[in-house]
Amino acid sequence: MNNIFLEKAGNIDIKLHEKIVNPKSVCSIVEHEDYYNGYGIKEIEPYCGRNVLLNGDICFDFGEHYVGYLSFKLSGIDEVCDSPVKLKFAFAEVPFEFSHKDGNEPGWLSYSWIQEETIFVDILPAEVTLPRRYAFRYVKVEILAKNKRMRLIFEDVKVKAVSAAGFDYKRVVKEDRFSKIDEVSQRTLRDCMQTVYEDGPKRDRRLWLGDIRLQALVNYSTVKDINLVKKCLYLFAGLCDEEGRVPACLYEKPDPMNGEIFLYDYSLLFMAALWDYYKFSGDKEFCEELFDVAYHQFERFYQIVSKEGIVLDQEGWWCFIDWDDELPKPLAMAAIAAYCLNFARDMAAELGKDAQSKEAEKYRLLLCDGAKKYYFNSEKGVFEENGIVSWNVNIFWILAGAVTHDEGRRIMKNLEESAEARLPVTPYVYHYIMESYGVLGMKEEMEKLLSDYWGEMISCGADTFWEAFKKGDSKFSPYDDCVLNSACHAWSCTPIYLIKKYLEE
Amino acid sequence: MNNIFLEKAGNIDIKLHEKIVNPKSVCSIVEHEDYYNGYGIKEIEPYCGRNVLLNGDICFDFGEHYVGYLSFKLSGIDEVCDSPVKLKFAFAEVPFEFSHKDGNEPGWLSYSWIQEETIFVDILPAEVTLPRRYAFRYVKVEILAKNKRMRLIFEDVKVKAVSAAGFDYKRVVKEDRFSKIDEVSQRTLRDCMQTVYEDGPKRDRRLWLGDIRLQALVNYSTVKDINLVKKCLYLFAGLCDEEGRVPACLYEKPDPMNGEIFLYDYSLLFMAALWDYYKFSGDKEFCEELFDVAYHQFERFYQIVSKEGIVLDQEGWWCFIDWDDELPKPLAMAAIAAYCLNFARDMAAELGKDAQSKEAEKYRLLLCDGAKKYYFNSEKGVFEENGIVSWNVNIFWILAGAVTHDEGRRIMKNLEESAEARLPVTPYVYHYIMESYGVLGMKEEMEKLLSDYWGEMISCGADTFWEAFKKGDSKFSPYDDCVLNSACHAWSCTPIYLIKKYLEE
Repeated sequence: MNNIFLEKAGNIDIKLHEKIVNPKSVCSIVEHEDYYNGYGIKEIEPYCGRNVLLNGDICFDFGEHYVGYLSFKLSGIDEVCDSPVKLKFAFAEVPFEFSHKDGNEPGWLSYSWIQEETIFVDILPAEVTLPRRYAFRYVKVEILAKNKRMRLIFEDVKVKAVSAAGFDYKRVVKEDRFSKIDEVSQRTLRDCMQTVYEDGPKRDRRLWLGDIRLQALVNYSTVKDINLVKKCLYLFAGLCDEEGRVPACLYEKPDPMNGEIFLYDYSLLFMAALWDYYKFSGDKEFCEELFDVAYHQFERFYQIVSKEGIVLDQEGWWCFIDWDDELPKPLAMAAIAAYCLNFARDMAAELGKDAQSKEAEKYRLLLCDGAKKYYFNSEKGVFEENGIVSWNVNIFWILAGAVTHDEGRRIMKNLEESAEARLPVTPYVYHYIMESYGVLGMKEEMEKLLSDYWGEMISCGADTFWEAFKKGDSKFSPYDDCVLNSACHAWSCTPIYLIKKYLEE
Repeated sequence: MNNIFLEKAGNIDIKLHEKIVNPKSVCSIVEHEDYYNGYGIKEIEPYCGRNVLLNGDICFDFGEHYVGYLSFKLSGIDEVCDSPVKLKFAFAEVPFEFSHKDGNEPGWLSYSWIQEETIFVDILPAEVTLPRRYAFRYVKVEILAKNKRMRLIFEDVKVKAVSAAGFDYKRVVKEDRFSKIDEVSQRTLRDCMQTVYEDGPKRDRRLWLGDIRLQALVNYSTVKDINLVKKCLYLFAGLCDEEGRVPACLYEKPDPMNGEIFLYDYSLLFMAALWDYYKFSGDKEFCEELFDVAYHQFERFYQIVSKEGIVLDQEGWWCFIDWDDELPKPLAMAAIAAYCLNFARDMAAELGKDAQSKEAEKYRLLLCDGAKKYYFNSEKGVFEENGIVSWNVNIFWILAGAVTHDEGRRIMKNLEESAEARLPVTPYVYHYIMESYGVLGMKEEMEKLLSDYWGEMISCGADTFWEAFKKGDSKFSPYDDCVLNSACHAWSCTPIYLIKKYLEE
């Protein structure tokens, strides 16, 4: 731990903006196969501040996704409140989360992520604030027990929404056809921007390095805040382990703590995040402070690169790449490293660290050469490993500069036409496909993918962009149960940045 | 409503004493037919301030019944807390309350009375205080969801116990054979003495007139507090309805409010409570203030008494008598009224209200004569109504002074020997049997009943005296499910008063 960095992180005061929001409507939850994953929300009436619950379940729709604190006034009519009122609240980012039933839990993550509360109110009338922060658009209320003759009235149901980004939405894209994507991107970013850049405000709320890099890019295009980025980068730098490894994720509370997970790909992306920050802010002093931490990740990485430029798969090293267990990882890891070495080279050069700049470029070239020599299948016109072709590997070689733009465009075309090329499963990797199209000037393809992937999510009801999305597999989940997925996830909010950078430049 | 009385009640500041108590032991809950209603508590180890929960349920035994607020420190070992911890707490006054299962709910009271909480703790370590006040000796903790590899540590588990009576227990009986009954009686009173005299701190927490009369008697023998009694009597007087009826019960919070229940027997007992207060405190001024309210209840009652001294059963009037639906009520009501008229007569005389004193005595005699003429079965030697003989009716005629002490003793003997005499089902009525024995000087019988009823409750595991108890019917409940019964109930705590007044005088 580096206490100076942690202290500096602690000294950056993040003000959370607040907004009080009432529900837009009172609804019922409808189970029907026409809806995405079988669950939909049907408006009963607009919310008008006062609602009588007739002993039945009810659902409030807040009109859009928020992160915040739910409160309401509760009173009884017809009869005195002679016994406590027992209520259950279930929160959902997307309607199909309401399909969750206790006991039916095939997923491998803790079901404590399901956002719900069971409360007792002893005395009516009462003003109640539920005890935690929730990420949701919909909230279902069930009356579990009460004086049966008494009917309950909910009044002034509201969420105190919080975000470090604030609630003044301004569209940043120029063209109308992107307006919905702009709105959903910005809402996703807004709801993930809390006292750190959370990866998902429902789950898992940690600060992840791969995610913050993407969030910060979107932030530079929209909110233009630098404090939260600085705080987060200080936290990562401050929480390196005794070997100097930047953690892949960290906890801010109760005290900053690394998440005990170290991933090669994420650790190298620290340099990318630093470079992006520099490009936006011009703050050389801050980059100087964190450069050694960022570059040390590469020095560690160099040790697992062979003379031929091949990453040696070995016990005890982990990288994320994507939520795809069948994808061989060494080649993908090499590609990402080569991509990140560009930032290391440029950052070092900018700071006058010529030796390191040269070293970075040397390794980048070594990796690129190794890949082209040993892993490029000239017949298929793509990189492959163990006979497996993936978008994942190829796009990072393009971004790394291993191939010319012409070669890159041919690779992209070959991938598009390939029946075997493994598709990514997370918006995180789709971002880098988009970036590749962008770098290669393939605007048409880029816009098609934007529409096919993020646009499709919106068609499926996304109000904020999702953690995981596989077209044609609505139940896909990295955790074996889609109700555990986060439906407002940092790494998915990049379309707005991509549009501004490549489609409207 | 009489706002002057309510204001005076509000001006009496009741200080709640507090005591911090740790559990005595860490236990498991055992289901076995040897235990009362099939549930027992088995000590695993003494509580030593730090306990590791190995992914299983655990139970803390606080050694005795308390009313208060549960808190603890929670932390994790072996693994980082990467997801919220979801815990369920179930509180029990007696072990068999743990038999309750959601969905298996045959009772007719709201199951919101079952004391439990399900909470989520997002961040560890945490100091947690559960949100409500609970009445319990045992608390079961279930881990519903968490990071499976992390084990949880509970530390500093404690209850902040509260009572207006305080926690300095002093035995008041002289003889050792009464010591356990003294302890359980005083604990029952202590835990019911909160900001009002609650009938039961688990359920239903209201202030009931029949109950407070008995609690106050015990208080005069033990705690000797007068403020709480005054506050409660002011509340009843302040919450009369537009016809001047004293309510049978009331709510103190959020603002004092009558319980919308009016019972003739309870309303007349207001005078008994006033008289008892006078005898203890000598505070004539207070009694003067409330006399009219108390006497008005009799004036209303006189209207349903026939010239023959018979209470006219009629639509729309209610009395409690006992939790026994098959007991005919008019004769019992007449007996209770005649009993209460003694207090009305004496209180009026003490305050120089001769006309009312005479009127009260006139009605008392009228009722007694009517009962003896129309309802005394000379063959059986007991009062009966519609062919039904009950202890309930007979004891109140004895207490009313309808018969001489010799006649009274014969009646008691006849009841004892009768196979048909209906027994009471609540300690509330058993109190008045005891009082009858006491008045009649039948010490031996009184002590036998003390042992057979309250002593038997203790043998069955009572730590505080119960709301309802029927020897040989452990599942008896006025609410059709014994888990809804209150196991710490005001009206059951009188043995200590009875012992002091009749057995150790």
